[in-house]
Order: sequence, then structure tokens, then C-alpha cells
Amino acid sequence: VQGAVSTENNQRITIAVDALGGDDAPAAVLDGAALALAQAGRQGLPLQLILAGPGEVVQPFAAEHDGQALAQPTTQAIAMDEHPASAVRSKKDSSIVVGCRLVREGVADGFFSAGSTGACMAAATLVIGRIKGIERPAIATLIPAPKGTVLLLDSGANADVKPEYLRQFALMGACYLREVLGAEARIGLLNIGSEEGKGSILAQEAYPLLSGLPGFLGNAEGHDIFSGRFNCIVTDGFTGNVVLKTIEGAVSGLFGALKGVFFSSLKSKLAAGLLRSDLQALKESLSSEAVGGALLLGVRGVAVIGHGSSTAAAIASGILTTARAATAKLPARIEAAIGPAQVG
Amino acid sequence: VQGAVSTENNQRITIAVDALGGDDAPAAVLDGAALALAQAGRQGLPLQLILAGPGEVVQPFAAEHDGQALAQPTTQAIAMDEHPASAVRSKKDSSIVVGCRLVREGVADGFFSAGSTGACMAAATLVIGRIKGIERPAIATLIPAPKGTVLLLDSGANADVKPEYLRQFALMGACYLREVLGAEARIGLLNIGSEEGKGSILAQEAYPLLSGLPGFLGNAEGHDIFSGRFNCIVTDGFTGNVVLKTIEGAVSGLFGALKGVFFSSLKSKLAAGLLRSDLQALKESLSSEAVGGALLLGVRGVAVIGHGSSTAAAIASGILTTARAATAKLPARIEAAIGPAQVG
Repeated sequence: VQGAVSTENNQRITIAVDALGGDDAPAAVLDGAALALAQAGRQGLPLQLILAGPGEVVQPFAAEHDGQALAQPTTQAIAMDEHPASAVRSKKDSSIVVGCRLVREGVADGFFSAGSTGACMAAATLVIGRIKGIERPAIATLIPAPKGTVLLLDSGANADVKPEYLRQFALMGACYLREVLGAEARIGLLNIGSEEGKGSILAQEAYPLLSGLPGFLGNAEGHDIFSGRFNCIVTDGFTGNVVLKTIEGAVSGLFGALKGVFFSSLKSKLAAGLLRSDLQALKESLSSEAVGGALLLGVRGVAVIGHGSSTAAAIASGILTTARAATAKLPARIEAAIGPAQVG
Repeated sequence: VQGAVSTENNQRITIAVDALGGDDAPAAVLDGAALALAQAGRQGLPLQLILAGPGEVVQPFAAEHDGQALAQPTTQAIAMDEHPASAVRSKKDSSIVVGCRLVREGVADGFFSAGSTGACMAAATLVIGRIKGIERPAIATLIPAPKGTVLLLDSGANADVKPEYLRQFALMGACYLREVLGAEARIGLLNIGSEEGKGSILAQEAYPLLSGLPGFLGNAEGHDIFSGRFNCIVTDGFTGNVVLKTIEGAVSGLFGALKGVFFSSLKSKLAAGLLRSDLQALKESLSSEAVGGALLLGVRGVAVIGHGSSTAAAIASGILTTARAATAKLPARIEAAIGPAQVG
């Protein structure tokens, strides 16, 4: 790292940012990073960024944001379609691997990337490492549902899981809600019926393991993501990922169909004009930009993965999400939560 | 059956209807049955109904629709929360079991119920029986997506499946699309990545089995339900059911949020007034009422299950869906399609 990172001031939160992550990188990342610094300033959050990426990209940014941003020049990049684990093993000087190494070495308090989810997962697991007692890290995504945000995990890290993994996902999700969002968990097991004993073999076996957890309310069905009853829904990474992308498709399909209605006549165009700002606000409140990232829970450091199509605003949200999880010392909280439960 | 069923006229399609199925039964069923007869008349479809249910419910209806409807009095009812298989075994004179028996005996060409999905599944499988070569019948649901209707199967019959079941689901779905809707299948395997080799062990093993089928386009992700690329998406009954209920929840949540926008100010109330009829039309086009039922594919007879909250309009759509599948002799078509494939 070029320039000295303040370690004397314990308050300062340092986040490593992958300057090459996302479809519109590095421009969207640099804009998002600047936005995050401005927003953090307004919120009184003492944020410092370390941008990992090509020197000619990150050094001018650090110079421009002297005292708030540092440059960590890297020479390699991992593309979206590379095999995650082998890319991470072979490209030691890629922005993703270097960003995770900064976290492992304690130079950064967290890492944010809007790059390849698989590569970030692999790098976080291989470079930063798993929390002791956690069998599989999970991707936790905040779904901005109209009746309240819902944390869905696993949303794609583990396509095949065991019942015990689901119990740990619930524990980690509850920890995030409590420590970072200040909310008590209302946990549901995603299933295809409301009563115990329903569903797949996995769901049937997981139910009794989950039922011992504080905040466990029972099975949640697909529509319960929007019912407001649960704020934490656990499932395997296959179902979770399909559900997440289904919601994205449904929301975008529905707004597309609404557009068709609005442009169908002069009368409706007029009406749409009156509603434009309210509808735009609704669309934004339901978009993933409001959240800006999915958390990788279960690794010994904070790592947040943004959507590949992240705009600057989404990158800024993602960086602030990373900073908040780091401020709350989330990995240590999860380790403490999982510890006694493992003994019991 | 009281009254003679015409077997001389091959054109006539006779559908057995469960008068006790659905939250608003029997009123919604009777209204829906009358609506179906009227719609069939307008479409030139020679539809005859046999209503199975309490004599005091079904006999007046048959008398009122003399020549178009028959009464099949039954003495038992299966509730939504009963254990499906044991209810079907113990209640031989329930409207669901009797309806299925009419199909097995060839008295009716198809059966429609908006009652317990599990009980209908169990009755259809136990009473009507599976098609030779089909390992597991599946529930196939038509999702009315803005860019074109998509057939999703299995949407809940089999929580745990084997790769070969998924191949058979695809075959049956393609058969329904071709024979009943006159559409060539564009088949996708629901998965969490677009390339072969991605996903759960099940999806990885199913891919090569599916890739030999005509119309197979590869993996479909959650958002592809709305992309218009596929018209037939296959998955296990756990994922399918979760996806279906997630879409229901998302659509209803979004229309709820829109309502909030519309009532937020005088200006928006005015605009909403101008859009009311167009929005209502959009909502209806996306609701399950437009389809009115899910098909039970793989049994040796036509059986269609309606949503528990079916209105009269939804019941009518469901009865007509049943009649169209019966007219197309769907079970025989599926048997013919699965036969040679089993040998190959």
C-alpha cells in the first residue's frame, strides 16, 4: 500500500475496494467510491478506502482523495467467466485476491467487489479463511420487499447443502440483523408448506435443527418473502439463487409491463407523467441498488459482493454496507455466536 | 351418475367437476361451471359437466342445466388440511375420489378440482393411475408472464426428484405445449448459471439427459421466466413450488405498493383514476385466474387442479383448460411420446 494507513485511530474504518469489479468498471467503481466517501462524511463515519487495481486507475484517485483513499496497484484481473478457484490460485496479484489479502493481513477492515461472485467467494474463503466452526460460508442478500427488508441466505454459494449448514446460515443471518441492522431476527425455513414435516428431505431434516434457535418462526413459503412475517429466510444456495433472480425478473417484467400501459394512450401518458417521480421512487426502493451488495457470511473478515451491473450509487451503498459490517465487527460476533452453539 | 351420458357422440367432452373444491365452494364452483358452459357454447365446444358433491348442491344445478350438466351425488368431503393419501384411501365417496373414478371408468374425459392439491394428486395417482413409463406425475403450471406464458413443472408434486424425472417432465411439458397450445417447446432446465456444468448435483446430472430432447435450449435462470426465451421450464417440485409462490407474492406485493403510491396524494389519485381500467387489465392478465388451473401430467387421464382461492372466473378457465386437454387426448399423446424414448 502506498501511503500510511492509520492504525492508531481505532475509529477509522478501512475498506479495500476492487477497482476492476463490475460491468462498468473502473468508471462506476471510482464514481461509487467518491460517492461513498462523501456519504460517509455526511454520516460522520470515518471511512478510508484502499483501491486495488491498475496503477494508472487507482493512483490518480488516491491523489485526488488524499487522506481518504490509498492506492494498491495490482497487475492482474479476474474476468467474470473464469473458473473461480483456479483463477484465484493462479492470479495472486489480481485486484480480488489482493483485496482479500489486505483483509487477512489486517490492513483493511473489509473488502468490497462488484466482480465475479464465484471468484470473490473463492478468494474470501481461500485467502481470508472460514470462521472456526462454520462449515460453509453463505451469501446473504437483503431483498428490499415492500413490507420490510428480508435477508435471504444462502443466495448462491452452496448449491447442495446439509441440514446443519441451514442452521448455521440462520445463526449467521440473525447475527447480521442484530449487530449491523439492530433488528431481532424473525427466521423462516424456506419450504413448500407451512407445517413441520412438509417439504423436501433436506427441509424436513433441517426443521428440528432450526427449531431450537431464538427467533425461529417455522416454515416460510415463497410468498412469505413479501408477507412481512419474516426478516431472515434460510435455504440452500440453489433455491436461494433461483428465488433471487426470479424476483429480479418479476420486478423488471412488471415495471416493463407498466411502461406498456403508460404508453398505450394519451390519457395514460398524461397519468403516467403525474406519477413519474413516485413510481421512480418505488422502483428504486425495490431495486438492489438500495442495498448494493450481498454479504459473504462465515469468513474471518468482512466481504461484500455487489451486483455485476452495479451503478455508482450501488457501489457506494455496497461500500457503506461493508463499512457498517466492519464497524460492528461482524465476523467476531458470528464466531462468538457459533462457538457455544457448537458445544451445546 | 343420474342421467345418461352420451357416449355415441364422440365430439362431446365430459368433465367431472369437484363441487366442493376451493375456499368459496360450492358457490364459486357452481357459478364457474355455469360460466364455463356459456363460454364453451360461444366457442362451439360441446361441453358436458358432471358435478360431484352433495345431492342438494349438485342436483339443482343439473336440473337447471338440463342436457349440459349431470349430478353425481357424493357423501364425503376431503378438507384442505387432511393427509392426502390417507384421506383418499378412507373417503371413497368424497367428491375428489369419485371425480377421479369417473375418469378412470371413462364416464368423464377429465376432472377438475380447486380443492386440496395433495388430495387431488393422490387421488389421480391412486385412482386413475400413472401412464406406463412415467416415473412420477408432475404438476405443470402456466405462468402468465408479460413476454409470453411459461409452463413450469414440477410446481409441487415431487419435492425430491432424480435427473430422469426432469427429462420426463420436459417431455410431458413439450407434449402439452404442442398438443394443447399448438406451440413448439423451448425448454430450459432451471439452474443457477447459464453454462452446462453449473449448479446443483441434480442439475448437473440432468443436463446431459435433457440435452437430447428436441427444443432443449439449455439452462434457464430465475429471471428467464420473464425473458421470453423459454416457454417450458423444468425443475424439481420444491424449487418449482417456491418459485411459483414467490412470483405470486412479488406480483401481489408490487401491486400493493403501487396502490400505496396511488393514494399518496390528490395528484396521484387523479392519475390512478385515469389508469384504473388499464392497470386492472394488466393485473388480471398476470393473475392465475387467466389460466385457472395446473395440470397433473403423467396420469392416465386428464386432471386439472385450480387455486384454492379460485373465483368463478378462475373455475371456468380451469374447466375449459381441462376440456381442451381432454379434447387433445393429452394422456395418450404423452404415452406415445414417452414410449419410444424409453426404448432408446
